[in-house]
Amino acid sequence: MKQPKVTVVDVAHAAGVSKSTVSLVLQGSSLVNEATRAKVGAVIRELGYVYNRSAANLRQSKSKIVGIVVNDLTNSFFAELAVGMDMVMQSAGYIQFMANSAENADRQAEVIASMREHGMAGLILSPARGTSAADLRPLVDSGIPVVLVARNVPGLKVSSVVSDGHAGAMAAVRHLIDLGHRRIAFLGGFNDTAVFDERMRGCRDALLEAGLGASDDLVISSAPSRAGGVAAVERLLSMADRPTAALCFNDAVAFGACDGLRSARIEPGVDFGVIGFDDVIEAKTAVPALTTVSVDPQGMGRRAAQLLLKQINAGHFEPEALVASARLVVRESCGAPQRVKELMA
Amino acid sequence: MKQPKVTVVDVAHAAGVSKSTVSLVLQGSSLVNEATRAKVGAVIRELGYVYNRSAANLRQSKSKIVGIVVNDLTNSFFAELAVGMDMVMQSAGYIQFMANSAENADRQAEVIASMREHGMAGLILSPARGTSAADLRPLVDSGIPVVLVARNVPGLKVSSVVSDGHAGAMAAVRHLIDLGHRRIAFLGGFNDTAVFDERMRGCRDALLEAGLGASDDLVISSAPSRAGGVAAVERLLSMADRPTAALCFNDAVAFGACDGLRSARIEPGVDFGVIGFDDVIEAKTAVPALTTVSVDPQGMGRRAAQLLLKQINAGHFEPEALVASARLVVRESCGAPQRVKELMA
Repeated sequence: MKQPKVTVVDVAHAAGVSKSTVSLVLQGSSLVNEATRAKVGAVIRELGYVYNRSAANLRQSKSKIVGIVVNDLTNSFFAELAVGMDMVMQSAGYIQFMANSAENADRQAEVIASMREHGMAGLILSPARGTSAADLRPLVDSGIPVVLVARNVPGLKVSSVVSDGHAGAMAAVRHLIDLGHRRIAFLGGFNDTAVFDERMRGCRDALLEAGLGASDDLVISSAPSRAGGVAAVERLLSMADRPTAALCFNDAVAFGACDGLRSARIEPGVDFGVIGFDDVIEAKTAVPALTTVSVDPQGMGRRAAQLLLKQINAGHFEPEALVASARLVVRESCGAPQRVKELMA
Repeated sequence: MKQPKVTVVDVAHAAGVSKSTVSLVLQGSSLVNEATRAKVGAVIRELGYVYNRSAANLRQSKSKIVGIVVNDLTNSFFAELAVGMDMVMQSAGYIQFMANSAENADRQAEVIASMREHGMAGLILSPARGTSAADLRPLVDSGIPVVLVARNVPGLKVSSVVSDGHAGAMAAVRHLIDLGHRRIAFLGGFNDTAVFDERMRGCRDALLEAGLGASDDLVISSAPSRAGGVAAVERLLSMADRPTAALCFNDAVAFGACDGLRSARIEPGVDFGVIGFDDVIEAKTAVPALTTVSVDPQGMGRRAAQLLLKQINAGHFEPEALVASARLVVRESCGAPQRVKELMA
């Protein structure tokens, strides 16, 4: 089944040029004229020659490989983030090592070490829960460009692309207050993460701004997943003085909250206001369509990839912190249409 | 910021051993005794030496890198498939190039070419729609082990891991018939794919087996996504002689169908039977919980990875076709509980 390997010498011979000319074509050199380049290219395709870029990278000691490590690929937000990075990297002629840490910091350390051993020009990391600055410092000190995405690691001086969770949460809760809600919960997410803290504080600050109480009872943490949302809303529904609306940690939690409400015969968007965070693809087509804080995950992925490529090409760099703006997208789950109908009646 | 690079010579000097001994330790050789191995290991960690595996791979001409290309990472099924592969590869000390083809065969060809250039020991491919045997033949002829997953490519002699779509679809439709449904649609999916054909034929064969008509009107294709499911069920609801249940191409379509039914004030699982295919994580927690044909995507990913590693290690191999069994998981969306209540009344 295996055929003898085609070499540069074979290509040079078939194209009637020197071995050095073939090498220049392979490196994309401008020293070769267009006609020769076309002829060599045609022979390469015809013979099925495969350029050994791994060897070329070693000679140039700069690889066209980046590493991407995400914390939970089964969450649509991170899958879309990865798709956004993939698009930019493919267009730029880069290829990525990609791994899922499954929120496990030890596993994250292992895959990063393995990516380093195999040679990567830079790393985009959506850090696992519990990642500390000390975990990443040896990598950063080695001079490999690192961009953090979605989550920051306090105390680490590297570039990052995160969303403005505080402003997004404030906009969402102000909207719920405008619709007449007075008891508003913050639902779901692990309460030991910076992202949780930021969004939860946005929710609290909007309540305080409106002169409403912001009790700790109204903050119900859970896994940041659909199943976590079901569990969190069940706890909410068992409260004596039950809230009438909730800002959820993310869209996955919001979908779970809608599921849990329906199980209890409470119609989301009619009997109870639900707002998500992220604006994943299915937010638009869900029933009720999810009102959510849009952070454009694919766009964040693209920006993180562009930032990393810029740093790789520059060779040296100052850390940059990009904060993607968060925009409230009003759909149906917050109860808005119903309320509008009432006001117009 | 960048520190001078630590070399093997530095490690040898600090550990008081020869350069060759350090090399043997790095290669995991059994020629070095345990005490020396431990001492060298401690120095490596202390100095922060990074083994250049890319160079080592070149010397050994066998890389610890595999390629994974999936067709749509934003679909939970493929994300879970990727997570399953990732788990096995990490445990085996392999690292993967991973790319999303976004169902674009040209893009798929580009990323595979790039992965080859960078050196991969094998490839797992969930082929983009429209991939032909001719597209992949040069890769297969080069002797690189290839495992197809989720979708087959007719005429290509490589290993594959697919689910038994025909048997799974038959089991699902038999269940709907047992519940009393007589007009059953097959909903969603691109009708030019082998997976569609197989599942659709399973649906039709179960109808014929029960002496029920299997009209082409009852097959409504769409994009295999949640939005596709909404569109497909809208077309179904506009039919004169409306079906009472549907087997959906996959879970994403089934969730979309439930959304579309609810928009039309038809309660899935009560007024209309819906069955999905795949059993993605959220099938269990959705409301109504989705009755679906379980193919265990993470398990399929793990099996594909194990098969690829087996072929890489064996050096030569005969293609193997693994067909993952498909099992009907009865939950709430097919209308079963309601029907059971009626029978018990």
